[in-house]
Parts: sequence; structure tokens; C-alpha cells
Amino acid sequence: MTASHLTMTFSCIDRPGIVARVAGLIFDRGGSITASSQYGDVETGRFFMRTEFDLPDGAPVDEFRDGFGAIAQSFGMEWQVRDRNHRPKIVVFVSKLDHCIADILYRVGIGELKMDIAAIVSNHPQPARAHFDIGDIPFHYLPVTRETKAEQEGRAFDIVTQSGAELVVLARYMQIFSDAMAARLNGRCINIHHSFLPGFKGAKPYHQAHERGVKLIGATAHYVTGDLDEGPIIEQDVERISHSDTPDDLIRKGRDIERRVLSRAIGFHIDGRVLLNGTKTVVFPD
Amino acid sequence: MTASHLTMTFSCIDRPGIVARVAGLIFDRGGSITASSQYGDVETGRFFMRTEFDLPDGAPVDEFRDGFGAIAQSFGMEWQVRDRNHRPKIVVFVSKLDHCIADILYRVGIGELKMDIAAIVSNHPQPARAHFDIGDIPFHYLPVTRETKAEQEGRAFDIVTQSGAELVVLARYMQIFSDAMAARLNGRCINIHHSFLPGFKGAKPYHQAHERGVKLIGATAHYVTGDLDEGPIIEQDVERISHSDTPDDLIRKGRDIERRVLSRAIGFHIDGRVLLNGTKTVVFPD
Amino acid sequence: MTASHLTMTFSCIDRPGIVARVAGLIFDRGGSITASSQYGDVETGRFFMRTEFDLPDGAPVDEFRDGFGAIAQSFGMEWQVRDRNHRPKIVVFVSKLDHCIADILYRVGIGELKMDIAAIVSNHPQPARAHFDIGDIPFHYLPVTRETKAEQEGRAFDIVTQSGAELVVLARYMQIFSDAMAARLNGRCINIHHSFLPGFKGAKPYHQAHERGVKLIGATAHYVTGDLDEGPIIEQDVERISHSDTPDDLIRKGRDIERRVLSRAIGFHIDGRVLLNGTKTVVFPD
Amino acid sequence: MTASHLTMTFSCIDRPGIVARVAGLIFDRGGSITASSQYGDVETGRFFMRTEFDLPDGAPVDEFRDGFGAIAQSFGMEWQVRDRNHRPKIVVFVSKLDHCIADILYRVGIGELKMDIAAIVSNHPQPARAHFDIGDIPFHYLPVTRETKAEQEGRAFDIVTQSGAELVVLARYMQIFSDAMAARLNGRCINIHHSFLPGFKGAKPYHQAHERGVKLIGATAHYVTGDLDEGPIIEQDVERISHSDTPDDLIRKGRDIERRVLSRAIGFHIDGRVLLNGTKTVVFPD
Repeated sequence: MTASHLTMTFSCIDRPGIVARVAGLIFDRGGSITASSQYGDVETGRFFMRTEFDLPDGAPVDEFRDGFGAIAQSFGMEWQVRDRNHRPKIVVFVSKLDHCIADILYRVGIGELKMDIAAIVSNHPQPARAHFDIGDIPFHYLPVTRETKAEQEGRAFDIVTQSGAELVVLARYMQIFSDAMAARLNGRCINIHHSFLPGFKGAKPYHQAHERGVKLIGATAHYVTGDLDEGPIIEQDVERISHSDTPDDLIRKGRDIERRVLSRAIGFHIDGRVLLNGTKTVVFPD
Repeated sequence: MTASHLTMTFSCIDRPGIVARVAGLIFDRGGSITASSQYGDVETGRFFMRTEFDLPDGAPVDEFRDGFGAIAQSFGMEWQVRDRNHRPKIVVFVSKLDHCIADILYRVGIGELKMDIAAIVSNHPQPARAHFDIGDIPFHYLPVTRETKAEQEGRAFDIVTQSGAELVVLARYMQIFSDAMAARLNGRCINIHHSFLPGFKGAKPYHQAHERGVKLIGATAHYVTGDLDEGPIIEQDVERISHSDTPDDLIRKGRDIERRVLSRAIGFHIDGRVLLNGTKTVVFPD
Repeated sequence: MTASHLTMTFSCIDRPGIVARVAGLIFDRGGSITASSQYGDVETGRFFMRTEFDLPDGAPVDEFRDGFGAIAQSFGMEWQVRDRNHRPKIVVFVSKLDHCIADILYRVGIGELKMDIAAIVSNHPQPARAHFDIGDIPFHYLPVTRETKAEQEGRAFDIVTQSGAELVVLARYMQIFSDAMAARLNGRCINIHHSFLPGFKGAKPYHQAHERGVKLIGATAHYVTGDLDEGPIIEQDVERISHSDTPDDLIRKGRDIERRVLSRAIGFHIDGRVLLNGTKTVVFPD
Repeated sequence: MTASHLTMTFSCIDRPGIVARVAGLIFDRGGSITASSQYGDVETGRFFMRTEFDLPDGAPVDEFRDGFGAIAQSFGMEWQVRDRNHRPKIVVFVSKLDHCIADILYRVGIGELKMDIAAIVSNHPQPARAHFDIGDIPFHYLPVTRETKAEQEGRAFDIVTQSGAELVVLARYMQIFSDAMAARLNGRCINIHHSFLPGFKGAKPYHQAHERGVKLIGATAHYVTGDLDEGPIIEQDVERISHSDTPDDLIRKGRDIERRVLSRAIGFHIDGRVLLNGTKTVVFPD
């Protein structure tokens, strides 16, 4: 048996003694904290913590989980203890634009994003000649019309469920989820919107940005909720543009922003760095 | 007599031969182009140009202006030829927050912004102990209520007119101009809004930003129009924030963004780098 | 009596149980952690922690300090417990350029930097007409030549000592400290260097940057050591420039970077966010 | 016959009348300027210009070239007139790391970089399972040792010559060209160095950056010269890092900077936006 490398995340109503109890448990079980971040939100009164720690060779992780579960219950925590060697499964939804999926595939391929793509779902057929190689990842072509939306979402959700995916990524998927679908994926579905939200919600944000004459464009990765482009924001970034950029130039320059913002958000999520705080997120930096 | 250092700016409907005519005139008068930028907007069909050039010792600037005026008329140009040694006068409007006016005063004082502050207008009395020194710049305390708004704006406009100011700067002036006042200052009044427009228009944008949970905050310098926070954008910038920033933290971090965005916009304007293009601007970089 | 708002910082050789002991002490004394950051450096084996916490009304801070001192001794910690309402004194050294001192004075004036400037030391006489107001802060004119350097530094050090200053800030002070002076101010003297170190050490970095043709310029705030421009870096930032920027343009654009980098570094230092880690720093973000 | 879309670039000793002559020629031939930038370097006395213009249907480009050639000769210009529909050929040199070549392939594939990759040269064998698809691009495995360097460079240069490539891109090619090879590719070979030059020249710059404790890391695209990491800089960018980043974290975060800086530099080069100015570049922004 070897040492266990664990990441614990939790949030609860703030009150004295939380850190002492949690750190005490880790110490009692012979564990060692390698990194830790805490945040107390004075507005909501909630406390958030993420701790990376190692348990010694042979220490039973299940027993630790039980011990932590008891503490968690007494403080009313929402919590997770995960093995840092665990590779989560994700399902990626795409439409025609492939710069985000290509980037995700590359990062998974070289081992930067430590996860497995269990399936790709698209409302467009698989391109004959792609700019990337999906290997043996199942590709599900699920066309959708207004009439078939409910059924298509049902099939898509089945794919997610059957794949065992912990996370769904909308990598420029150009369909809006129904409220029901958004609710079913609550807190485990990340979308990339190609604007610096809350500016330019909805369709064709680069055209809106061009029309308004802004001097920077951006992209926003957020959890999907029933409210379009209103979900909790995980990550954003921007780049400078100029008066001479056409909407096509913005689309080109925006691709770089979108792919890096989305990939960062995915990395933060699977690393347990993102904790929900109502309609907002706590993101402990890497 | 000495050489004249001039900056010419113009815009007009694009058609062949504009640059040839303008460059030809400068050459004919013995002038020498030191920097030049052009931009043709394919959507609106307008052409924009800014040229720095020198006329030789003794060359009469008025004669050059006449010559250029003839060309300008034939192309239907909106144009300006200004001496680069000319120091424009500006009037600054403020309320209680003084980080922008303090920054402007400093930059004028060390010669970075080559202009003169002809007057300061405030709807609050001059502070007994300021964090900056206005020297002998006239300070006009013009309190305003809903009832006295028209009259107060009239007095403020008189101050602008009598001062000979070419530009009005709203340096965190917390009053909204009437449509009439906005119209009278059209194209020569710059406001700083403390958000990355079009996000968070209106009141308390840092509180809105905190509420929404964005990961970057920004500021926007724009020309004032009758449409609140909708005028042509001159300059924007952003800074990264985190979940742990309170609205007060955003206000603090935002001050740095506001003052540098506003000062840049003022510098661009007085340098003749900003040309209006409908509801947008062309900004030739320095 | 009222509640105490404290910030504790420490570093020590990493071993299991540190967080548990420290958090346990705070809990035992009825305290409440409001924010906390930890970092373990696997290369050096050192552990760094910064915790903001409140002790309840009437809880004796000295007794807490004693309790913590015992823990600190057992772990071999370098540590500090400071009251967050404590206003440290600083001494600022300047030469002719005043954009950094003007910025610091402004931030102190509006309450952003919660500290008192105990004295200003300059190797140039006080300007007759400054772009800022030093109020009643003592201004010490200490001219320096190669021959008088040792004596001048002695007098400067006396001023620092007698003022009770915890921090010395070199706000574009254009003299190089002797090794002896650097050693006496070790860990409590911040310099701003006007380049993105380690690029362009030494004299005239903007001219060096112009000569090399870089596309971004920067500034670096660091602790002063005997090794010129080699001290532990606290904060850096950059701005984009272009081929058309002259050295004077770089100096102008650089002023904005220098003043915000220096002020950030000062704020981090007095907030207890900067911990020394050999020749590097740990900076817990605000 | 259809209209010709041309880009003209030139540099020469600055003197009055250049713009007038060039713009006059375009006008005389019925052409129309769509974008133009000029820059006069007062230090070197050189003038740089880039102009996009269209000639009407049926206008003979060769005749225009002849006309421009006569002007160019009279002013002693270095010049190029190229068709904007021309797709240049490039050869990419790689070693083991493939994030830059993968990114270039993707951008060529979707039509963002309008060029053809004529060949890939590597000092490592083609990977059995790549994270990208080179299609039918010839892959030349040219291993190199100290003894075979001259011969290997000779073969590599032959591949470049025979491919008709206008540009060589070193996409993390981990070999240093001999002076002879650098000279033969002068002005048409772009390298990406994984640091913000002039900081951290030479080997393992991320380890150097970690060792020095900088707060930002960067990448630099530059033309290759005989002087290692000293060639004219085309583009640079940076990202913020923290004390907790290991060298491996810097390598990971640096990949994103490297690939976007290199791809931008390539795009600028093939667009005719980069003009050499001694040991520096003039880059007219897109």
C-alpha cells in the first residue's frame, strides 16, 4: 500500500473551531497538509476551505472519510474528499466550431488536464476531415429541432449518465438547454460564453461588441443554470482590440481567449478549486 | 521664425486619391511627414487620417490651412490642423472623490498632459484639506438639486464657455447631464465610468460587479451623449479580482484603473488621436 | 474593552500538526479565523502561514501572544502577531522624480495605505513648488557625494531609527546603498526598479529597453540587499509598448507601472502578506 | 480578370515626398488605399511604410511593380509588393515538445494562418501517436550530434530551399543554429524563446525564473541571428504566476504564452507587418 494524496473541499456556516477540528483530524490520522486555502464570506456567513493533504502508507482512506463525515455532519458541511490520482470522466458538447474541443483534446492528450473524455455529443455530424483526432472517443450525433429538443436532451442526458461523467462541458455548443436539462446538470456543467459577461449576453456577442465599439473583448466560463448567461462565473479573460478590427477579426482573436478561459475553468473544476457560493463562485487559485 | 510642428486630422467619405492629395500638399509646401495613420471603415465607407508633419522655417501656417481647406472642401472632410505646441484649456467637473482630479493635476504639473486646467467645477464645496493642490485654478462650487439642475448646468456651461475650454472632463462627477447639456458639449466632454461597459451601467457599478461575481473589473472613458453610459468609448482597461474582494476592495482597486483610463483618454483626445465614427471612435495609438 | 483584530504570520520547517496546533490555540482562546492562507515549499521544506482572526471582547492579546510564543518556539518559527489597527511608520527616500512619493502620499491621505510617513529623506533639496503636499512630514535634505556616502547613510539610518519606522521605501531614490546600509535594513527596505527584472538591471533601464526593442516594459518592487537589483521580488507588472515609443515615451508610460507596483508592494508588506523565503518571497494575495 | 489586393511594404532613408510619390502612383493607376501605416525613426533616420491597396479589374500588377520599382530605386528602398491572396510556404522545425506545432497546424487547418506548411523537420523521430495530425506534410527526421551538426544543417537547409519556403519557424526546436545557418536564414527564421527576453536567456528559462522568484513569466518570438536569444524581437507576452508555482507549473502555464506569441509573430510576418530596423523591428499592428 502507498500513501494517499487527497483533496478535501467543503463549505458550511462559519463558526469558531472549524479549521481546528479539520486540521486536528488530519493530524490525528498521521496526515500532512501540503496546501490549504480558506475563505469566509462575511455577507453570506459561509466558510469555504480546500486542503491538499497526504495520509501515510497504509492509512485507510475510508476510515478517514468516516471520521470527516462525522465532523461534516456536525457543522452541516457540503463536502468532498477526493483522491488526487482519480481521473474524472467528462462529456463534451460541441456544434460546428472546434477550437475549444481541439484545445481540450490536446491538453488531455499531453496529460495537462488529468481527466478522460467519455463521449462527445454534437448537434452536427462528425466532420469528415477534422482539425483534431478524437481517437476512440464515442461521437454522438444528436441533431435537434424545436420539436425534438426535449427528446434530444433526454438522449444526451442518458449519454452523460451512462458514461459516468462527473462534468459536462459545453465547448461552443450553440444550443440553449431547457430549464429541465440545466437543472439536471446543476453545478456540473460548464459553458464558455464568448463575451466578457455581463456585457453582450445572448447571440452574436462579437458582433454586439463590434457594434458598441468596445476596446477589449473577452470570454467567460460559467456554470450553466436555467438563466441564460447568468450562471456562476468561474473564469474570465480579455484581450485588447482596436477600431480596425472587423467582427471576423474579433471572432479570430476571441478564439484564443475562449479556449484558454474554458480550459482553465475545467482545470480548476476537476482540481476541486471551485466552490459554489450562491450565484457566485469561490475559486482558490492554482 | 521657426519651423511649425502640426497635426492634421480629418475624416471623409472614402474615395481614391485622398492620401495622394494630402501628402502632395505637404510636400509642395516643403513639409515633412513624421508620423501618419490611416483607417478606412468598410462598413460606413468613411476614411480617417491623422498626420504629424513639420513645415519649414518661415512657412506660413495660415497659407497651409487655406490650401488644406480647399482640399477638405472638395472631399467633404471634417478636419482640424493644430499646432503641436498649442496648450488646450480644459474644465474639470468633480464631486467628492478626488483620485481622478488629483491624478490629472499631477500629470499636468509635471508636463505629461500638455494642457491647462482653466477651472474646476464641483457640486460639493472645496475640501478644507485636499490631497492635492489646485494652485490658483478657479474652483466653482455649484450645488445642484433636482429643481436647480437647469440653472446649475447653465452656470456651468457659462464657465466652460468663458474659460475658452476645448474639452470638459467629468472626473467622477456624480451628476447626470441633461440632454441639453450633453448636446451642447457633444464630442468635447469625456466621462469616466467605473465599469467595463456595457456591463454595469448606471449607479454603483462596483456593487453590481460584486453581486454578479465577475473575475475582472474595469473602467471606461467615453464621450458624453444624451444616452447615459452609451457614448462613444475612447479607452477601457481591467484588473483581475477575486472572490474575496468586498465592494470596498473593488472601489480601491478600481481607483487605479479609473485614473489611468481617464488620463489616457484625455491624452489621446488632446493629441488629436481620437476621431468620431458615428457611435464609435477611431483611436490612433500613441 | 473591544474585540481584537489580529494578523498572525509565521514560517518554519514543515512537519505534521502545525495548522492543528495554531488553529487549536485560536479556538481555545475563543477566537475566530476570518481568512487564512498556507503554503508549503517542497524544495526548501518550509511552511508559511498567514491568518487573520478576531479575539473576543476582553480577551488579553498579550496572553495570546505568550501562548503562541510557546508553540512558535516548539516549531522553531519566525513569527509575528500584529494588531490590524496598528499603523506602521515608514520613511520614504526620494531623489528628483516624485511620481512615486506623490502617489504614496495620496494613498496615505485618503486612507488606502494605513500607515504614517514619519520622514522623507532626499539627496536633493526640497523643491520650491512640488506637485504634492507633504504637510508637516519632516523633510531631510541629505546630499551625498562619493566621499560623504558613509556619513550620509549614517545620518539617514539615524533618522529611520529615531522615527520608529518599521519600513523604508526607496521611491525612485537614485543612490545605491552600501552593503552595510543594505544589511542594516535587511527585510524592511523596499525599492522600485524601473524594469521587469532580471532584464535591464542597473542604470537607465528604459534606455536599455528601447535599445533592445522589447515589446513590453515593466517595473519591479523588491527588498533591498547588498546585491544590486537582486533582492527578493515582491511585485512586478508590465505594459505593452510599440516600436514608435522613444525612451521618453517609455519613461512616461513607465511612471504608471512604477507607482502602482510600488504601492501594491508597500500595501502587501504592511498587511503582512509578504514572507521571506530565502532569496524569494511568498506573497499571499489580497 | 479581377481586382488585385496588394500589400506594399518598404523602408528607406526618410526625406520629404515619399508618401506623396507612393500615394500618387497608386492613385494614378486607379488604385485605392484601404489601410496604411507609416513610421519615421528619428534615431536612425529611416522611414517605414505598409499599405494595403486594391488595383481595379484588369490593372496589370507587373506594370505597377515596375512603376513602384522606379520610385523605390530613386529613394533607395528595401521593398516588397505582394498579393494578399498569395499563400507563403513555411518549414517548421521541432523537437519533442509539440504544443507550438500543434497550434500552428490547427490555425493553418481552419484558415486562420493563410500559409502552407511545406515540411516539418525534427531532430527526433516522428511520434507513433501524436496529439495532432500532420496529414500529408513531409516529416523529415534529421538527428543531430555535435559531429554531424554541419551536415544536418546542410540537409535541413536543402529541405527549406527545395520546398520553396519563405519562412522557417523554430517551434521549440531545441538545437542552436550555427552562425552559418543563422546567416543563411537571416530575416526569414522566427524562433520562440520561453522567457521574457532579455531575462533568462539560454537553457531552462522556466527553472531560472522559478529560481529568481519572478511574479510574471513570458515568451518572446524573435528573428534568429548568430547571437543566441539576441535577434530582433517581434512579439512578447506574459502571464502572472505565484510563489506556489513549481517549475513544472511554469512549463504548463508557459505553453499557452509560447504558442500564442509564436502564432501571432508568424501571422504578423506573413501579413507583411514586420519590418526590420537594425537589431529591432517595426510591427504595424493588425
